[in-house]
Amino acid sequence: MQNLMIDGDRLWQTIMETAALGATADGGVRRLTLGAEDKQVRDWFRDECEAVGCTVEVDEVGNMFARRPGRSADALPIAIGSHLDTQPTGGKFDGILGVLAGLEVFRTLHAAGYETEMPLMLVNWTNEEGARFAPAMLGSGVHAGVFDKAFADSRTDADGVSFAEAIEDIGYRGTTPIGQIRFAAMFELHIEQGPVLERENADIGIVTGVQAMRWYDLAIRGREAHAGSTPMDMRCDALADAASIILETQTAARSLGAMATTGQLSIISPSRNVIPGHVTLSLDLRHESDEELDRLEAAVSHLIAKLCGERAHLEVVWNSPAVHFDPRCIQAVRDGAAKSHAATREIVSGAGHDSVYVSGVAPTAMIFVPCKDGLSHNPAESTEEDQCSIGAQVLLETIIAYQSSMVSGDQTFQRQS
Amino acid sequence: MQNLMIDGDRLWQTIMETAALGATADGGVRRLTLGAEDKQVRDWFRDECEAVGCTVEVDEVGNMFARRPGRSADALPIAIGSHLDTQPTGGKFDGILGVLAGLEVFRTLHAAGYETEMPLMLVNWTNEEGARFAPAMLGSGVHAGVFDKAFADSRTDADGVSFAEAIEDIGYRGTTPIGQIRFAAMFELHIEQGPVLERENADIGIVTGVQAMRWYDLAIRGREAHAGSTPMDMRCDALADAASIILETQTAARSLGAMATTGQLSIISPSRNVIPGHVTLSLDLRHESDEELDRLEAAVSHLIAKLCGERAHLEVVWNSPAVHFDPRCIQAVRDGAAKSHAATREIVSGAGHDSVYVSGVAPTAMIFVPCKDGLSHNPAESTEEDQCSIGAQVLLETIIAYQSSMVSGDQTFQRQS
Repeated sequence: MQNLMIDGDRLWQTIMETAALGATADGGVRRLTLGAEDKQVRDWFRDECEAVGCTVEVDEVGNMFARRPGRSADALPIAIGSHLDTQPTGGKFDGILGVLAGLEVFRTLHAAGYETEMPLMLVNWTNEEGARFAPAMLGSGVHAGVFDKAFADSRTDADGVSFAEAIEDIGYRGTTPIGQIRFAAMFELHIEQGPVLERENADIGIVTGVQAMRWYDLAIRGREAHAGSTPMDMRCDALADAASIILETQTAARSLGAMATTGQLSIISPSRNVIPGHVTLSLDLRHESDEELDRLEAAVSHLIAKLCGERAHLEVVWNSPAVHFDPRCIQAVRDGAAKSHAATREIVSGAGHDSVYVSGVAPTAMIFVPCKDGLSHNPAESTEEDQCSIGAQVLLETIIAYQSSMVSGDQTFQRQS
Repeated sequence: MQNLMIDGDRLWQTIMETAALGATADGGVRRLTLGAEDKQVRDWFRDECEAVGCTVEVDEVGNMFARRPGRSADALPIAIGSHLDTQPTGGKFDGILGVLAGLEVFRTLHAAGYETEMPLMLVNWTNEEGARFAPAMLGSGVHAGVFDKAFADSRTDADGVSFAEAIEDIGYRGTTPIGQIRFAAMFELHIEQGPVLERENADIGIVTGVQAMRWYDLAIRGREAHAGSTPMDMRCDALADAASIILETQTAARSLGAMATTGQLSIISPSRNVIPGHVTLSLDLRHESDEELDRLEAAVSHLIAKLCGERAHLEVVWNSPAVHFDPRCIQAVRDGAAKSHAATREIVSGAGHDSVYVSGVAPTAMIFVPCKDGLSHNPAESTEEDQCSIGAQVLLETIIAYQSSMVSGDQTFQRQS
């Protein structure tokens, strides 16, 4: 069997072609879910998939499924999926690379005249970003039964336009019932959105799962008092307490191999010469193990209680358990990367992706490629042309490897006619 | 010479009488500078001063000077002064007690028929609070030449009404030229606005000066990054830097006997799952010694530079040197308190007062009385009736003691006719 090689130039040009749909002056992309630019890229996506012999179905929340037939007509397809929507200040790669690399895989197979044993499928999930309609990963979540269609329809944007209105407006309310389309497995190629691969000169991240994440709100009561007339030993300074908690939480997280972030902090009624009497802040704790995250939560609760007693109130506002991707899918990524001679590193995703929800209903794994300075959700988001090519090649080899692990014999890909 | 005793009941009733002018439902007072309630209390003040034999003059920024004649018609008067305006959510005592205790001293002398050697003067300074027209201590500042009249006139309130319009509206633009009225010394009785006297069961604070205060703005740049995909050792977290600086600054302040407060802190573009890339905060540093405050500033600058290097920018936005009150005035307060058998403590004021500016043009000292829980600028602001009485008695004895130190002989107070 000959080596199938994706066309890196073609992939890069395709990335630039779609980047024009919603292009911003600073080199970024603004392509909000179900907006005019999203309709443009969806129309384009349908045309390009059909051009390589796919049939495209759209489900009731706009998820687009392009099916490439295989020899076993009845077998469940192996899917590749990600998303084409962006943040308001998005870049050219987040999600988009995963869909376009899948298209490049299909184009490569099509050009080579290869017929796979199992059908393949390329998915564009609706509203991964959650930027126009919260929450994020809405289309894949509905597909996986995490949310229902009515919930999706009821979401409204900042102008009060509902998801239901928006999807009708652009004509992407499909007729395929939610969840009717099934697949044998899904692979998602994505930019890392972090700095680890770049630091370690790895081409490919073999993503074994997604971190457990918990979000908390913490409120601390102190006692407002005059900054000039209240001696240091008679203060109850809610901001000083917050500062201690932020630093001690980060120290605890480091010692457990976890991550801890405070991204929001407000002093209620702040005044330059008043000791803060009421402070609220967020905590974002993450670990690849639910058990270790439990341990961190206990440590943080303890240190808050010790410092503030009844003056502090910690509340969990979101809890997302760890995701462990399918071992056979992960092995297929390893094999695909080895076949492509890519420098790899196993990694646990710190960010959420469509694969999180899809993994609940189908075997799933992800492939990461580096992104410059770990930057995403930013016009400056950047992955090199070579890195995109390597990612797409690994995606192709991963599909082949996964199929090999599923079917008997090794004549996986048959040249047509 | 008989002991002159102030009338505590009369003083307390007078406090409650003025508290009705601008009374709020929660027991506080809202009597904004040059508003309708301020006119009411000014009219009342003039009447009450005239009733005890004073003549009242008003200067061009509304400062009210009630003169009680003495035997030496040409001598400069000994003044008592504070303010009758309040914060929007003010209490019954801040400033008010100082003016009304002065009135009680005049009433006591009047009832006893005493004529002092030197004339006395009772001053109601305009706009001490700065709540309607910033800055604070405006009337005393203009009197002392810190600000000029045009500056005062140009101040506007939140509705765009100027100080000039407001003072004309209530008819309190006086004709006495700024700074024409001079006095030999001024004493100001005030609530402590801090918790020290209460903690130490002291009736009276002998105020030897006012702390040096410096206000700073600090801006810290980090690097915004994803809270889930950025390992702890690859972060540049501007909020973690801020937390360290807040705590280390407070530690440095404690070791130098200084005070350090951060009352304002903002994360620019905060997001729960984004590592803060830009944080701004305030620093308020105070010490009774300018030199020690210099030392603290150097320590804080050093620790910021060490932690953040070029990523942090510290800027001084206000600098108020230490005030050392007049030694003879301070001694008069000590003597007056001893005569009154009051439990005393020497104290340095952490808050600003009219006496700060007045001390630049006349010998000055202050007398503090305790306030419950150190609370002020609050409807719950509270000083006990007994504590007010002791304060007024010490004020009376202080005036007598100061006059004794000024004139030869001991026949200071002469019963009239």
